[in-house]
Amino acid sequence: MTDNLSFELLRTSGTARRGRYTVNGRSVETPAFMPVATQASVKTLTTEEILELGAQQLVCNTYHLWQRPGPELVARHGGLRGLMALPDEGPALLTDSGGFQVFSLSGRKGRGVALPHETDGESAEDWGRLDGENRVPETAVDDGGGSLVRRLDRRGVVFASPLDGKRYELTPERSVEVQHDLGTDIVMVLDECTPYPATPEEVERSLGLTHHWEERSLARHRQLNAERGNRRACFAIVQGGMYPELRARSAAFLTELDADGYALGGLSVGEPKELYRRVLESSAPLLPPDRPRYVMGVGTPADLVHAVAHGVDLFDCVLPTRNARNGQLFTWAGRLNLRNARFKDDPDPPDPDCGCPVCARYSRAYLSHLIRAGEFLALRLVTYHNLHFYLELMRRLRAAVEHDGLDELARSIGEAYPA
Amino acid sequence: MTDNLSFELLRTSGTARRGRYTVNGRSVETPAFMPVATQASVKTLTTEEILELGAQQLVCNTYHLWQRPGPELVARHGGLRGLMALPDEGPALLTDSGGFQVFSLSGRKGRGVALPHETDGESAEDWGRLDGENRVPETAVDDGGGSLVRRLDRRGVVFASPLDGKRYELTPERSVEVQHDLGTDIVMVLDECTPYPATPEEVERSLGLTHHWEERSLARHRQLNAERGNRRACFAIVQGGMYPELRARSAAFLTELDADGYALGGLSVGEPKELYRRVLESSAPLLPPDRPRYVMGVGTPADLVHAVAHGVDLFDCVLPTRNARNGQLFTWAGRLNLRNARFKDDPDPPDPDCGCPVCARYSRAYLSHLIRAGEFLALRLVTYHNLHFYLELMRRLRAAVEHDGLDELARSIGEAYPA
Repeated sequence: MTDNLSFELLRTSGTARRGRYTVNGRSVETPAFMPVATQASVKTLTTEEILELGAQQLVCNTYHLWQRPGPELVARHGGLRGLMALPDEGPALLTDSGGFQVFSLSGRKGRGVALPHETDGESAEDWGRLDGENRVPETAVDDGGGSLVRRLDRRGVVFASPLDGKRYELTPERSVEVQHDLGTDIVMVLDECTPYPATPEEVERSLGLTHHWEERSLARHRQLNAERGNRRACFAIVQGGMYPELRARSAAFLTELDADGYALGGLSVGEPKELYRRVLESSAPLLPPDRPRYVMGVGTPADLVHAVAHGVDLFDCVLPTRNARNGQLFTWAGRLNLRNARFKDDPDPPDPDCGCPVCARYSRAYLSHLIRAGEFLALRLVTYHNLHFYLELMRRLRAAVEHDGLDELARSIGEAYPA
Repeated sequence: MTDNLSFELLRTSGTARRGRYTVNGRSVETPAFMPVATQASVKTLTTEEILELGAQQLVCNTYHLWQRPGPELVARHGGLRGLMALPDEGPALLTDSGGFQVFSLSGRKGRGVALPHETDGESAEDWGRLDGENRVPETAVDDGGGSLVRRLDRRGVVFASPLDGKRYELTPERSVEVQHDLGTDIVMVLDECTPYPATPEEVERSLGLTHHWEERSLARHRQLNAERGNRRACFAIVQGGMYPELRARSAAFLTELDADGYALGGLSVGEPKELYRRVLESSAPLLPPDRPRYVMGVGTPADLVHAVAHGVDLFDCVLPTRNARNGQLFTWAGRLNLRNARFKDDPDPPDPDCGCPVCARYSRAYLSHLIRAGEFLALRLVTYHNLHFYLELMRRLRAAVEHDGLDELARSIGEAYPA
């Protein structure tokens, strides 16, 4: 519990936590999953549908929105909340720092993504454009080395925008300012995404920079809240690679900074699943127990169950929205690929055990046809269903923590989604 | 009024007609506009939204659905109505004959479209694919002349499918059989799309083929209704190019065939607007007054008002759905292009005079951002609004005929949509 974010721990079951936080008057029941609204839109879905699905918090992308339509424009339209026409009461909004995308411009690895411009796999490029206007003018801004980063040091990063070739400077202060202008509820500090693999020396060096940037982020954040009379929250991000002692040092340093919540960064960046799980299990208990714990960019249904069991409260992941593109449906019986020929003539609902409006109305045969015909409606229906599945999984996880039923839920999800 | 389609003329105002028909128990208030559901999906919209918009009848594409997913599969899933999960009470369904697309495969002009595969501008190619699976395997099936048509004579057309290279034979009988299998309410006869320009001799020759095919279509249709105990309706199509005497001859010949409704074909195929209007004005009165009159592939808001004033009852057009791709919005003050820079920062609703949920919730600035960011949501919102506009225009046209207010409505639409 801090001035800007009240976190109540309602129940624990083993190391799992059932909680609730309120930020800017918006309440989030935890453990919670945030649908990804990279460019101020949860792919294909309207605000009405986001509400209907019961999303409690969305995550938006600072890098993309900074460059287009720009924080000043967003601020003039009531922030992201006003622009997206979200009601006052919720969902809450979290923005990332923009660092992840900027580092990916330099060709450096981070969160498992090595390619420039691929960002979080949710960029408009991946989804097809309405036209060519927005394409990356590669020759105009690329300096030949494949990197759009012009300078990277302790002060921050200067980069050329792939959209317009203009120079932008990302510093901890600027990241936080943009996030405040976007009108987020939860600001994320600027950190350096530690690549994998990395030697202890590399990780330690990176941690020094990260901690320096996080301190500056928090300082600027507090200043802005004070200047503008706002009560936005700010989360710190624990790094330290795959090294428990560096994770511990990072957690101890950042706990002193008294952030409103704590994220585990630098996970799910290409490391083996076993290692990921071991680091998560040893790192989660290092975080202050009275603050929400967020694992960024995770994960599969089985990952969510695992992380919740180890005390994580907050998640975001592109899987339910991104996999819709490939016709991949998350069901209670496991993943199902609607491109598979066996569904062409199948009159069953997409997921017979699901109560969402898509499964109530349409057949696998219809979805199968829409996918083959390249109809946008397929994306909409699969995206909607997948988010419904993820949000329903979180409801079941919350109930399971309340009733000590996590083992049973873990077993059934483990059968449907084997490692 | 026929056995399979009861048409009541409720009111006339000058030459304009306000009517109602019932087909297979589904009622349509006329004049009516049919949203286009080429591949069993009104681009981007769910069945719930189609109902919410108040669409009374949809038009589906026989050519596309014949090849994918195929009439047998559609029939197994309860016809298009079952596949699309449309409720029993409506909207009604009309299918075209498939001829238009097949002729376009031969590179011949028709309905203003000269390019092979471009079909009605609503094909999946235009909208982007989910992946490459469905791309036209050009080298595999094209015989070198650019045409996929293998034989075209009085019997019908043999063509190679651009989807799978397989040979299909489109005859009047086969077209009608496919339409019955698709479970349509209104079957369209197979005709030849008369190109523009064409000499009187060419049009006369084409008319001979068209009339022969239409007779065979109607005969097979009646046989199928009798064999299967169905009461589907069938519309004939008047051709005759831009020549009034040929139009009159075609209308007289087809009236004898006693179809359930009559379409004016071969209009809006590239002829000057003045000529189109003159031919429509002289042709509409030639059609039997006790049957619904359908002008295919028309048109702009001003075209609809004009045709209604001259006694046309039924329309379909891709404009509201297709133009959404370009960010073009139909509003009561005229067309508005959301790609225009002046809307980037505009907090107004897309159409301040519109009561649809899109205009009630979102701003021009948000739509503008979504379009620039390449977000699918933009397509959805603009498509929904545009169809709402078209269907609301039809409601106003029906009310105007009832209250002799057509001149006034024509004036305001004429100002917003000057020729």
